[in-house]
Amino acid sequence: MITDKLIEKIIDLQNPTCVGLDTLFDYLPDDMKADVNSFEGVAERVFDFNKKLIDTLCDIIPSVKVQIAYYEMYGVAGMKAYEETLKYAAEKDLVVIADAKRNDIGSTAACYAKTFLGETDVNGLQKQAFPADYVTVNGYLGTDGIQPFVDECESKEKGIFVLVKTSNPSGAEIQNQVLESGVPMYEYMGGLVEKWGESTIGKYGYSAVGAVVGATHPTEAARLRKALPHTFFLIPGYGAQGGNAEMLKSCFGANGLGGVVNNSRGILCAYKKQGGTFYEAARAATIAMQKDLSSVIGVMKK
Amino acid sequence: MITDKLIEKIIDLQNPTCVGLDTLFDYLPDDMKADVNSFEGVAERVFDFNKKLIDTLCDIIPSVKVQIAYYEMYGVAGMKAYEETLKYAAEKDLVVIADAKRNDIGSTAACYAKTFLGETDVNGLQKQAFPADYVTVNGYLGTDGIQPFVDECESKEKGIFVLVKTSNPSGAEIQNQVLESGVPMYEYMGGLVEKWGESTIGKYGYSAVGAVVGATHPTEAARLRKALPHTFFLIPGYGAQGGNAEMLKSCFGANGLGGVVNNSRGILCAYKKQGGTFYEAARAATIAMQKDLSSVIGVMKK
Repeated sequence: MITDKLIEKIIDLQNPTCVGLDTLFDYLPDDMKADVNSFEGVAERVFDFNKKLIDTLCDIIPSVKVQIAYYEMYGVAGMKAYEETLKYAAEKDLVVIADAKRNDIGSTAACYAKTFLGETDVNGLQKQAFPADYVTVNGYLGTDGIQPFVDECESKEKGIFVLVKTSNPSGAEIQNQVLESGVPMYEYMGGLVEKWGESTIGKYGYSAVGAVVGATHPTEAARLRKALPHTFFLIPGYGAQGGNAEMLKSCFGANGLGGVVNNSRGILCAYKKQGGTFYEAARAATIAMQKDLSSVIGVMKK
Repeated sequence: MITDKLIEKIIDLQNPTCVGLDTLFDYLPDDMKADVNSFEGVAERVFDFNKKLIDTLCDIIPSVKVQIAYYEMYGVAGMKAYEETLKYAAEKDLVVIADAKRNDIGSTAACYAKTFLGETDVNGLQKQAFPADYVTVNGYLGTDGIQPFVDECESKEKGIFVLVKTSNPSGAEIQNQVLESGVPMYEYMGGLVEKWGESTIGKYGYSAVGAVVGATHPTEAARLRKALPHTFFLIPGYGAQGGNAEMLKSCFGANGLGGVVNNSRGILCAYKKQGGTFYEAARAATIAMQKDLSSVIGVMKK
């Protein structure tokens, strides 16, 4: 059960951190960028960068989140680097979150679910396209657009994170709209997420159907933590977006469980502030983040 | 201005039809599927199928919608077929809609906008990843997740379609939630879409920021048509999903303009019902659809 696996890694490492491999080519050191003039060249260097980061961090972090937009923008070659990054992170036993925010009607959602969580049939042969442990999804199309993902969660021991309360400022335009019932949209969406997860609750009490809850919204996060006892949170917005440890404390329960906190630019680009190699700086930034989180979240011991 | 171009093609051809290239490998005739055992093999055959369909239909339809899920599920090779299909349809002067339902926070949305509507920078060289005229997007993250797309619409004469009222049954769970103000969510989202389009209104009165409005929901469509006078509709749900011409009539104004109606399975798989070659059957099904739509929508003459 994937959320159990993620939680166990968090407990073992005493670190609820997820490193976001939002590897924009511009983030790479100058010497890795020189002479590149094609998508193929970019893809090769981005994968080299990711590989070195994964090698450097895999003993101290439980998971990576790989944002597909930063690969797709380099075309087919970029998608090859995406596939390679997902697979390399899995080889290093990291819990891999494909951040793709997929959404569509049921028949199409079933294709997305196979792409990221299951297998694609080719004349009876089962093949993996972009394999991950979790994929992020957008719930605007309701249950029939989510159920195909839940089916894969059940049969393949995979997970999803559904957008509930996003970290960006404008999310409130939709997500904080108050319904006639008095409940804001994000909490209503959260209620659906809790329901979608009912069939996959693991031994720590959290299901395979998680929620994206931004570190930048502590009030909403506190409401959601209380309303969604079985929902594990993927928490973006720490660092570059303005979230800090104190703000995201309310996402966690008394045992220090309940979520994983993503940091992308703060780790990938740490070398630009701190100097040194990108991977040494990334390791130092990751350790600093773990200490910062530990100062407010006491992850339970084994 | 892309919506003007789309409307002019609709007027010229007297046909507000969009063919959905949701080309699942299973849809191909048996002789095209035989001996294929890899994603590369699938991708080659899918592109052959699409190419023949585009060749057969490009003189009678204004546009195609290419659903990325049906390509991504065949991995990197599938994405190559996606790129080739977008480019081939553009060569045949079709208006090309990338159906990708992308959504993210601003910095990431900017990458998606470049991927589908603009160009990606590689050390100062500008390159296209998956070029289309329109891309579909999901507005759950609000304005800062949409603005980067609107920026590309303005600078590159491109367009987007934002999910407003989707064709699937469960869409109502979120989209028909009534807000405190008394307005249902889909209409509130529609209001944002109308506002996002203000800077790109063309000579027919429609902007580059369109809305996805399912053919399966005539009541909601009528409300939206009235509330969103400058918003062009992409209308899925005709055919296999249960929508018919009478149901989607309310999406159109008195001059027979206001939207483009998508049909995927009904055209791609027409040969399975009607016999003959897949492309002859697709052409017959497309002509039948045009007649069916014409019986209720009188597209203005030049």
